[in-house]
Amino acid sequence: MPDRPEADGHTFDAGLLNPLSHGTRESVLTSDQAWLQAMVDAELALTRALVDAGLAPEWMSAVCDRLADASQFDLGAIALEARGGGNPVIPFVKHLGRAAEKVRAGASDHIHVGATSQDILDTAAMIVAHRVTCELIRQLDSLGATLADLADEHRGTVMSGRTLGQQASPTSFGFVAAGWLDAVLLIVTRLDVIRDTLPVQLGGAVGTLAVLTEIARARRSDAVAADVLDTVVTRFAHHVGLVVPRLSWHTNRVVISELASVLAAATGVAGTFALDVSVLSRTEIAEVSERLAPGQGGSSAMPHKRNPVSAVLITAAALQTPGLASTLYGSMLAEDQRPSGAWHAEWQSLRVLERLTISAVTGAASLAARLVVDSDRMLANLDLTAGLVFSERVTTILAETVGKTTAFALVERASHEAFVTNRPLQVVLASILIAEGCSDALRAQIWAAFNYEDQPGQSAVGIDRVVHSFRQRARAGTLSATAYANTL
Amino acid sequence: MPDRPEADGHTFDAGLLNPLSHGTRESVLTSDQAWLQAMVDAELALTRALVDAGLAPEWMSAVCDRLADASQFDLGAIALEARGGGNPVIPFVKHLGRAAEKVRAGASDHIHVGATSQDILDTAAMIVAHRVTCELIRQLDSLGATLADLADEHRGTVMSGRTLGQQASPTSFGFVAAGWLDAVLLIVTRLDVIRDTLPVQLGGAVGTLAVLTEIARARRSDAVAADVLDTVVTRFAHHVGLVVPRLSWHTNRVVISELASVLAAATGVAGTFALDVSVLSRTEIAEVSERLAPGQGGSSAMPHKRNPVSAVLITAAALQTPGLASTLYGSMLAEDQRPSGAWHAEWQSLRVLERLTISAVTGAASLAARLVVDSDRMLANLDLTAGLVFSERVTTILAETVGKTTAFALVERASHEAFVTNRPLQVVLASILIAEGCSDALRAQIWAAFNYEDQPGQSAVGIDRVVHSFRQRARAGTLSATAYANTL
Amino acid sequence: MPDRPEADGHTFDAGLLNPLSHGTRESVLTSDQAWLQAMVDAELALTRALVDAGLAPEWMSAVCDRLADASQFDLGAIALEARGGGNPVIPFVKHLGRAAEKVRAGASDHIHVGATSQDILDTAAMIVAHRVTCELIRQLDSLGATLADLADEHRGTVMSGRTLGQQASPTSFGFVAAGWLDAVLLIVTRLDVIRDTLPVQLGGAVGTLAVLTEIARARRSDAVAADVLDTVVTRFAHHVGLVVPRLSWHTNRVVISELASVLAAATGVAGTFALDVSVLSRTEIAEVSERLAPGQGGSSAMPHKRNPVSAVLITAAALQTPGLASTLYGSMLAEDQRPSGAWHAEWQSLRVLERLTISAVTGAASLAARLVVDSDRMLANLDLTAGLVFSERVTTILAETVGKTTAFALVERASHEAFVTNRPLQVVLASILIAEGCSDALRAQIWAAFNYEDQPGQSAVGIDRVVHSFRQRARAGTLSATAYANTL
Amino acid sequence: MPDRPEADGHTFDAGLLNPLSHGTRESVLTSDQAWLQAMVDAELALTRALVDAGLAPEWMSAVCDRLADASQFDLGAIALEARGGGNPVIPFVKHLGRAAEKVRAGASDHIHVGATSQDILDTAAMIVAHRVTCELIRQLDSLGATLADLADEHRGTVMSGRTLGQQASPTSFGFVAAGWLDAVLLIVTRLDVIRDTLPVQLGGAVGTLAVLTEIARARRSDAVAADVLDTVVTRFAHHVGLVVPRLSWHTNRVVISELASVLAAATGVAGTFALDVSVLSRTEIAEVSERLAPGQGGSSAMPHKRNPVSAVLITAAALQTPGLASTLYGSMLAEDQRPSGAWHAEWQSLRVLERLTISAVTGAASLAARLVVDSDRMLANLDLTAGLVFSERVTTILAETVGKTTAFALVERASHEAFVTNRPLQVVLASILIAEGCSDALRAQIWAAFNYEDQPGQSAVGIDRVVHSFRQRARAGTLSATAYANTL
Repeated sequence: MPDRPEADGHTFDAGLLNPLSHGTRESVLTSDQAWLQAMVDAELALTRALVDAGLAPEWMSAVCDRLADASQFDLGAIALEARGGGNPVIPFVKHLGRAAEKVRAGASDHIHVGATSQDILDTAAMIVAHRVTCELIRQLDSLGATLADLADEHRGTVMSGRTLGQQASPTSFGFVAAGWLDAVLLIVTRLDVIRDTLPVQLGGAVGTLAVLTEIARARRSDAVAADVLDTVVTRFAHHVGLVVPRLSWHTNRVVISELASVLAAATGVAGTFALDVSVLSRTEIAEVSERLAPGQGGSSAMPHKRNPVSAVLITAAALQTPGLASTLYGSMLAEDQRPSGAWHAEWQSLRVLERLTISAVTGAASLAARLVVDSDRMLANLDLTAGLVFSERVTTILAETVGKTTAFALVERASHEAFVTNRPLQVVLASILIAEGCSDALRAQIWAAFNYEDQPGQSAVGIDRVVHSFRQRARAGTLSATAYANTL
Repeated sequence: MPDRPEADGHTFDAGLLNPLSHGTRESVLTSDQAWLQAMVDAELALTRALVDAGLAPEWMSAVCDRLADASQFDLGAIALEARGGGNPVIPFVKHLGRAAEKVRAGASDHIHVGATSQDILDTAAMIVAHRVTCELIRQLDSLGATLADLADEHRGTVMSGRTLGQQASPTSFGFVAAGWLDAVLLIVTRLDVIRDTLPVQLGGAVGTLAVLTEIARARRSDAVAADVLDTVVTRFAHHVGLVVPRLSWHTNRVVISELASVLAAATGVAGTFALDVSVLSRTEIAEVSERLAPGQGGSSAMPHKRNPVSAVLITAAALQTPGLASTLYGSMLAEDQRPSGAWHAEWQSLRVLERLTISAVTGAASLAARLVVDSDRMLANLDLTAGLVFSERVTTILAETVGKTTAFALVERASHEAFVTNRPLQVVLASILIAEGCSDALRAQIWAAFNYEDQPGQSAVGIDRVVHSFRQRARAGTLSATAYANTL
Repeated sequence: MPDRPEADGHTFDAGLLNPLSHGTRESVLTSDQAWLQAMVDAELALTRALVDAGLAPEWMSAVCDRLADASQFDLGAIALEARGGGNPVIPFVKHLGRAAEKVRAGASDHIHVGATSQDILDTAAMIVAHRVTCELIRQLDSLGATLADLADEHRGTVMSGRTLGQQASPTSFGFVAAGWLDAVLLIVTRLDVIRDTLPVQLGGAVGTLAVLTEIARARRSDAVAADVLDTVVTRFAHHVGLVVPRLSWHTNRVVISELASVLAAATGVAGTFALDVSVLSRTEIAEVSERLAPGQGGSSAMPHKRNPVSAVLITAAALQTPGLASTLYGSMLAEDQRPSGAWHAEWQSLRVLERLTISAVTGAASLAARLVVDSDRMLANLDLTAGLVFSERVTTILAETVGKTTAFALVERASHEAFVTNRPLQVVLASILIAEGCSDALRAQIWAAFNYEDQPGQSAVGIDRVVHSFRQRARAGTLSATAYANTL
Repeated sequence: MPDRPEADGHTFDAGLLNPLSHGTRESVLTSDQAWLQAMVDAELALTRALVDAGLAPEWMSAVCDRLADASQFDLGAIALEARGGGNPVIPFVKHLGRAAEKVRAGASDHIHVGATSQDILDTAAMIVAHRVTCELIRQLDSLGATLADLADEHRGTVMSGRTLGQQASPTSFGFVAAGWLDAVLLIVTRLDVIRDTLPVQLGGAVGTLAVLTEIARARRSDAVAADVLDTVVTRFAHHVGLVVPRLSWHTNRVVISELASVLAAATGVAGTFALDVSVLSRTEIAEVSERLAPGQGGSSAMPHKRNPVSAVLITAAALQTPGLASTLYGSMLAEDQRPSGAWHAEWQSLRVLERLTISAVTGAASLAARLVVDSDRMLANLDLTAGLVFSERVTTILAETVGKTTAFALVERASHEAFVTNRPLQVVLASILIAEGCSDALRAQIWAAFNYEDQPGQSAVGIDRVVHSFRQRARAGTLSATAYANTL
């Protein structure tokens, strides 16, 4: 047995390299302690299910009550002993059994009955995942509510739409916020489904529930054995708040891949929002900024710096999740009835992925709530192109009269001339239209098109559609938020 | 403008490095030609939608009919010119416009109206994805049907369950097949949803539908403009067989991430099955094999080799998809209204991911149909451990009398002795039980437990549950299969 | 045997989804045709080595000459037949053997002697990799030369250094260019090593050279068999221009991982440069731009757009390579003497990685050569912060008198006041210094520090160091450039 | 300022999900505490360098001595405050400054002079990387030494070579071990280079060393300023045992990519070895096994299990590193003078990558030392194919007389007949050769070829070559091992 590592205190990760994690629930929800608690929850749920099915004595319920708090177990010792068997459940079952015996002699006989290590660790992973998805939904609800308000409030705040880094055509900040919100809505809707379909794992050594079947047959008639087993699995799922799968899924990791995908996508959604904030915060653009508390956003070298630190750290989280998701996809290649490494590679990858996702989404909710919008600067930036951002609109108007192809060529020529002579497109185009013998009425219409007052396109309709959908779901989601509160 | 590459013929990829692709539809469905066709489909659907909404003349329908076949366009030239604008839509619109003018003067004015390049390319990507998901569902249906038959047929074929590469406890080959089937069922169910929710993209330059709005207002009253736009979007989606999204999704790539996730997971499902076949085909295990046609499975050096080539190539495909999925997750970080690279990084990654998935799933369907099961060898392999695979069962029986802890320790001791003395566990355990003063009845029960005739645990029930669910969906899915046939 | 795919012409990829590839050598160097040629090169090199070692007749040299051009082989048929054996070498050897027999009866007996499929395909991969690395070095030399000139020319072109998107302190554009150049120099130096250490693969079925040993013993005395084998391997390497490895490396894929790492890093180097160009091209920054030919950089919807298309496409390439590299790292897990999928997963991943790297690096060389630098705009942008970019400098000067901590606090206060009152830092700081009773001399020094004329720090020294190192290597590299020309 | 996380104790990761880490130095070398120590080392090295260059007073050396132990700083508080500025250096400098002032008033003025946060954190990362690479080299030396002994000892231990999971041709276990060793040798050689070229980072806010230049000019003559700066950088590197880079590398991350690549490759090398052990440990193969201590390798459900737990956990580590490496490659896309997220994404990814690599390599060294080789079983397994593994050899012998093509066809036919009739190839082939009128002498030679006594091919020569090279390096590496001991 290897010695304990040289200095336990030295291995403590305080969050030095993940500043975003502080103040979030990610550490609490995904720590070793949280996993150990989930392992306790899983084992005791199994025992309680045996009681429910008449395969364990009633007094085990009271024993379970006494064993329910994971803090009574020696996490460090369990972790240390995990190496011998290759997973933490093996020593954990021994610790749990010893504790059970102390409560009542013979109690350990009703612990871990019919289960294999993976049953417990996978179920624990799903318990953790359930808590994590609940927290993510809560944070995304908060992020979405803020974005919905921003979209509403700024439906008339005109700004430049940008494509490939270049100013393109006017849009509104409200519409941009609605775009962020739509992504939040898509991902939270998916998370709702994932949260409600996380399955327990219970199959025994090779997935067939052979031991439980054996026991059921021994203690009850063969005729009812199948029903008894149904009860065990159903009650097991009930006690941990998860669903019953069609089959044990020791090597069928579609569930994990779906979870990984929604986590990585949630970080992507938070990350896109944060990246936009980063870009719009650039000194030369400065259309939005983070409201910073004193001492935030500073630099160790430059007294004047006001860095968009939250946006940067959220982006950083989003850059890390795709690689972790790919590891979990790779772990789908699980051979035999339980594999030689693919399963073991999931544990840390999933945990870190969950952590980063909570950090990113919680950070995004906070960032949205602290977003400062500078609508004057948005207008001023639109002026930078001297009217070029209206090129699409005036082309469209011109096309109604001269046809699309001619209109495009004409405005392209005018844009080029405006660019090289550094004159406003409005003026250059007016001259060209005169030269081309264009009617006064059309010229007046074109001249008038160079204004920001019109709603850009369907932006109002789009905002309404997304905000409405989000708020509808939020109202319907109230109950699930209550349920969430009860699970913690 | 850059010269054409030195020798076009040299750039042709015939599948030399992806042998699995031959005979599958992956090349046809995802080739440049297929993409060009989808781009044609998208552009013409938009024009037809304009006709439907009264924003383009009726005669454009006939023009669209004439332009519908992509083979009339010069793919090589379009690809070559794509470099200038950074995407293939820009030159394609010019080629399409010229062709339209040849059919009828003025027709090009009604092409690409209100659309931006990304509208067309994203919609084309979804058209391709729709065809790809239909094909995947078809292949998974076929794979599943074979696996269901295998599960049914082999419910009584006992084999060793293996964990961490070691024989663990008996299972049945039917139950193993049911496990593969369950994964297929999960993923095909998800694909059903994805296929039916793939959205069109239509937003114009910055997602606001500004140009179409301008046109609708110019030609129709302001009062009906919103309805007219609704008609355009709805009919656009109708003409390409996709759904209408809440908002344009130029930088909200949740859709792409979901697609990527289900593709990678489908390859993972096929890959796990193939990996199991590889393992079970090993010379020393030899429980299953691929039925090989003459000339297949050979070696360039060893005349005797009968390699599980399909299994190997499917596994290879599954090893490649996680990295591609991670690229697509990374591309969610899309800044501005259209990003400077993230979108462009999707095209090839998605295409290759689709190709590999079709190859893997089609290969798996073929492999399943050619699977040879050697049930004698399965029994013979179980004998290799001289009864150790029954250790779990006899522990369970013993535990009913002496308690779980004592039973485990006793069988652990017997197993160790059996292992080091190379004697059957049945015999060793009998001696120990005598020494321990165990009752004759219990010893007889233990002795009798060393047999393969009992169904291992709930394997029959599990098989029934999965096979039943699969067949139920397959029956319900008939219509969708018909619909599929019509889309090609 | 499966039918040919439905329509060969439809599977042709013209570059529609990788516009950057046109005009580069990536397609030619990495096409199926190029791989087939490399397979021919490998097989014939082996035969010639047998001749050199006296294990094949002299007349085989002439046969090899006749077989040397890969275009005489039916690529499509070989690809089609590859599926049966799981790799393209198996059918290729048959095609080659038939062709050899047509040249001279009995010639096929001297083809593929002692080799296994992986020997040929790995050696072909290294031949392709050699050509690819040569091309990459050539392009990086070109990129570096342009960057060296830019660094030289713009050593006095002051611009704002930016950190976390915010203006930070002044730097020079020459120094920025030197930073890009340094990365190019690091990676090209590493490529030099990789190119010169790419090994042949020759081990036979299980890596032991058993067949060749058998033959050498049969035809020559046992005493010289080892020397004869040495000759075969050495001459084999000589004929393809690669090096002799310590051992066959069928499952030791360190070589592949190193190649993958340098390719991904080279794309990263090109991508960082391109990303900077994208950022500096933003409408609101506009310090650099791509010189665009007519028809380049346009939009399908907006007549005025001048997109940084090369920068965007290079960035897109760099976003795709990390996932491919990860696949190749994953393939290091190669079991047995040749693995069941890990090797097969390398082929396409490596090929696509090579393609993207050539595209990215060639694109970067072109982009650098077309880079337009707007030094006036650089100065104008520095003025945007009203002096805040000098905060670090004035803190440093103040610190000489009042200490670092006091100075930092003082300038931090002044910066904050300047920011909220929208006044120049120079003015605000002057007032504060008066209020603090600062000496006239110091105030004058501080006031004078607000100018751009001083070289920022060690920028000139740094530029010289990097440019000098690059040019030194370029001169020394002349010979290798000549050698390169001869290999194509 | 955010509150401290709810319960610090709950966030402690004890290794529950990474059992392999116990007893290794990974936690100690890469913990937050180790990073904090490295940050202290970096800051104090800078101050000492300023003293050396005459830019800070001599008495600061004594202050540095007092500040050198990182355990005096409040890690938790620093981590907590890191969020405000987006990196841990900003609060750390404040804590360090306060501590310095307590030692001597005015001391804080000489801390962090001229440096930016990234200078300190990157240098700290390189200090950590130096310790990590030293440890890896030590473990790989140990692994290699054991493998060299195994290769030596088992040069005559014949076993079946396997390709695509099928028995192929005989090899020796010594040769297989030499293959593992060759990979170890390649990677340790690369690690030697990486360890000795890890650079310090020192550039100041935008990489130009502007502040230090300003100070040097203020305190020394302009004439010597450049020399003084050279001294600072050189002494800085000296004090932390790293090298001086050509230029600051804030956004030139080639160094990180090289480090990532060698770490991922080292895990791949360990993982391939472990994967082979997993496969060869399978119940049906059982040619090697892990020597397990009591309590190791067990199962929570099956008393008889003896799982290859180390091999499985090492493989799991190797499955996780490619995704992490891809994140670090992605982080090469670092815009501006310091980027908005790419750099921040490196910290945790690099740390976890280092941890997994130490775990995997240390685990592999231990596994190799505990490897039990069953040479009898190797021979027995070779008999399973009834002579088919000799097909290549007898083909080669036959080819000497009848030509290669005829020989291959003949043995292919015999192998097929042997396979379907389940008779030994030796016997079947003999009958066929008689039928074909083959000479008695040749038949005798063929008959005799079916034996395992001959060394398979060049296996002895190959073993010697690799073992010799490894031991040569090991001898030369003694000094570096001493140097290593001094650094800890």
